[in-house]
Amino acid sequence: MAEDHHHFMGLTLEESRLALEAGNSPVGSIIVRDGEIIGRGQNRVISHNDPTCHGETDAIRNACEALGTPDLPGSTLYTAMEPCPMCCWAIVLAKVETLVLGARHAEMGRTDYGDYSVEKLLEMGNQTVELVTGVRVAECEALRRSWSGWVEPEA
Amino acid sequence: MAEDHHHFMGLTLEESRLALEAGNSPVGSIIVRDGEIIGRGQNRVISHNDPTCHGETDAIRNACEALGTPDLPGSTLYTAMEPCPMCCWAIVLAKVETLVLGARHAEMGRTDYGDYSVEKLLEMGNQTVELVTGVRVAECEALRRSWSGWVEPEA
Repeated sequence: MAEDHHHFMGLTLEESRLALEAGNSPVGSIIVRDGEIIGRGQNRVISHNDPTCHGETDAIRNACEALGTPDLPGSTLYTAMEPCPMCCWAIVLAKVETLVLGARHAEMGRTDYGDYSVEKLLEMGNQTVELVTGVRVAECEALRRSWSGWVEPEA
Repeated sequence: MAEDHHHFMGLTLEESRLALEAGNSPVGSIIVRDGEIIGRGQNRVISHNDPTCHGETDAIRNACEALGTPDLPGSTLYTAMEPCPMCCWAIVLAKVETLVLGARHAEMGRTDYGDYSVEKLLEMGNQTVELVTGVRVAECEALRRSWSGWVEPEA
């Protein structure tokens, strides 16, 4: 599984770079089920004038549309950046089973989301999603820092 | 303002009934700025196979697309049901100023979202949205209970 996670996070980083090149925040997402990619997504907030279009929600919408279903049980969602509360809950609503994330807000020193973490929101909302962390973190963090919208936290 | 809230929540209830008639959860949403409706939305999870399409996110997308902008500062969003965490954060991301909500999870005895409330998530995430509650609550609750997906909480 670790090898798979490395591979699919690499594809997630590719989607993230495409998002950045299109003028958006560099977060892409890939959804996999039974070893097969069922959805790809990119942050398109600026390019599509859609504040709800983060990498994760885009991937979920694309997968559900392609498969003709309102949820994705048994799937694994990869994202280059810890999902925001909107995306965390979209993952819950879509019945995604496993969430594999790269960079994390707290580890990058971000304080613009207060005390938020995916674990805290899932606990508050009484929901369970299997979490996998620590996958290609350095590359995900470097990509985030390369974005013009990145504000380096004060030490 | 109370009169305006009553009026716009009535239109929100109309959108909610349309969502129900189309086979979805009965939650609609209206976004108003400077007294003008700039967006309307309906839950379309089932009819559009999109788990991210709640009334609030649909209204935000429609407003942003129509106006050609990624956010809606100075706007007021009406919803028939307290927003879920996904929609609460979409409201934050869209820079909505005021949130007017009808039925509330806790007041209806719902426990499927654990201890979640919009206030708790906004506090965790260090965000501020002006909240207005108590508008046409009985009608919003009755509509929610009329939905086939409603499960009456145990006493």
